[in-house]
Amino acid sequence: MTLDLDARTQFAIDLARRAGELGLKYFRDLESLTIESKGHQDLVSQADREVELFIRAAIATDYPQDGIVGEEHASVAGSTGYVWVIDPIDGTANFVRGIPAWCVVIACAKDGETVVGVIHEPSTGETFHGRLGGGAFVNGRPVKTSAATSLEEGSVGTGFSNRAEADNIAVLIKKILAEGGVFFRNASGALMLAYVASGRLLGYVEEHMNAWDCLAGMLLIEEAGGTVLKADPKTVLQSGTQVISGGKGVFSKLQALCSGVFAA
Amino acid sequence: MTLDLDARTQFAIDLARRAGELGLKYFRDLESLTIESKGHQDLVSQADREVELFIRAAIATDYPQDGIVGEEHASVAGSTGYVWVIDPIDGTANFVRGIPAWCVVIACAKDGETVVGVIHEPSTGETFHGRLGGGAFVNGRPVKTSAATSLEEGSVGTGFSNRAEADNIAVLIKKILAEGGVFFRNASGALMLAYVASGRLLGYVEEHMNAWDCLAGMLLIEEAGGTVLKADPKTVLQSGTQVISGGKGVFSKLQALCSGVFAA
Repeated sequence: MTLDLDARTQFAIDLARRAGELGLKYFRDLESLTIESKGHQDLVSQADREVELFIRAAIATDYPQDGIVGEEHASVAGSTGYVWVIDPIDGTANFVRGIPAWCVVIACAKDGETVVGVIHEPSTGETFHGRLGGGAFVNGRPVKTSAATSLEEGSVGTGFSNRAEADNIAVLIKKILAEGGVFFRNASGALMLAYVASGRLLGYVEEHMNAWDCLAGMLLIEEAGGTVLKADPKTVLQSGTQVISGGKGVFSKLQALCSGVFAA
Repeated sequence: MTLDLDARTQFAIDLARRAGELGLKYFRDLESLTIESKGHQDLVSQADREVELFIRAAIATDYPQDGIVGEEHASVAGSTGYVWVIDPIDGTANFVRGIPAWCVVIACAKDGETVVGVIHEPSTGETFHGRLGGGAFVNGRPVKTSAATSLEEGSVGTGFSNRAEADNIAVLIKKILAEGGVFFRNASGALMLAYVASGRLLGYVEEHMNAWDCLAGMLLIEEAGGTVLKADPKTVLQSGTQVISGGKGVFSKLQALCSGVFAA
């Protein structure tokens, strides 16, 4: 199993970087990009679809018996217990408007538990990766979550989607500010989770995230010494989860702030 | 005057890039960086101070009779009517924690009117520049503000500091969401203003910004076809200003949202 995981981890890192290169080609030629709306403020581009197909083809070649769940195409059932969970471009709203904060996200779950997570930001060349029991890293250097014990010591990432009550996020922000904290939202949830893992943000909270947006980052945070609200392994791949995450010293504070704001 | 401005514009672009290289050296070696607090959630590092001294030295060499106003050191009076307004690192809280969204900001004002503005983001290599009457550009390519007429078509950048009422920002965010909009805060005000100029964000609003944070971006936005709330040329260098800015199609909407929230 460990050798298996080492190989899958290296595969995922290499694949995320190659997928990022492909994404960058589209990003540098935005004027000819086809963009569609999937709903209110929910966009998808030809780049999302093509990068996901590229990632799926690589998985099908190297791990043909594994399952695949991705944002833009139908799920593929597997027979090994391993399921790849991919978001070709997290931060599509940034991507299509030219904001460089977007990333490729590749996670691998075994029987519902995330075992590998990779978040790669092509614009800055940073690759975050984690392996269950094997630590968390950025470009190969170990990272750890913030040691802060107060929200006054940094910023808390937040996000929201059309799947959550918009009003809730304003209430949550007010609570963070009342604690002397600061909110941060660069519109790429996976990237903000990677920033939590590397101690750059104190924590990250969002009422609902899809599996492909959050599983990689949640593993990274735990492997970097932080705490996350556990997702239900039976439902997370299909239905996503609420995300509360942070360094050990602020997690319970964040959880208290979110209770009564987020849907139970 | 035009030739003068052309020369100062090219000087500012080159200088911002060189200052960015110096900043990157500190950014890549954060563990040895000395950081101090100037107040609640208001940090300054050795990098801010050293990069500002580097910029000041270059100005003193090439334009010894010009004035200088900067974030970290005392103002220098000049005799030409030109005043350089500099923020060596905008987004210090990001910088010291390892988040790559920070920038070098160099503006030049003549008799209180901004005539040159440069915003350079070292992590992505993007340099935004504008010259009064000469347009706005990113890495030499012309940019324009968003043509959107509704907040539903994109995101609005926001910021706040310990100089503004924290509660106000939560109220403003609630109003933006009620319009079907989305808020964005990557914690570098100048960078978000550059994103407005290049149509990546619909607009940017902040109750109070210092001159070194906002003058370059405000010029860029006007030169890119957008609208900004005019700062008082008599007081802006000393006291800063309220910032409301955006594409022509959303400016009045943003102004309406801010009225009654921001201090008059």
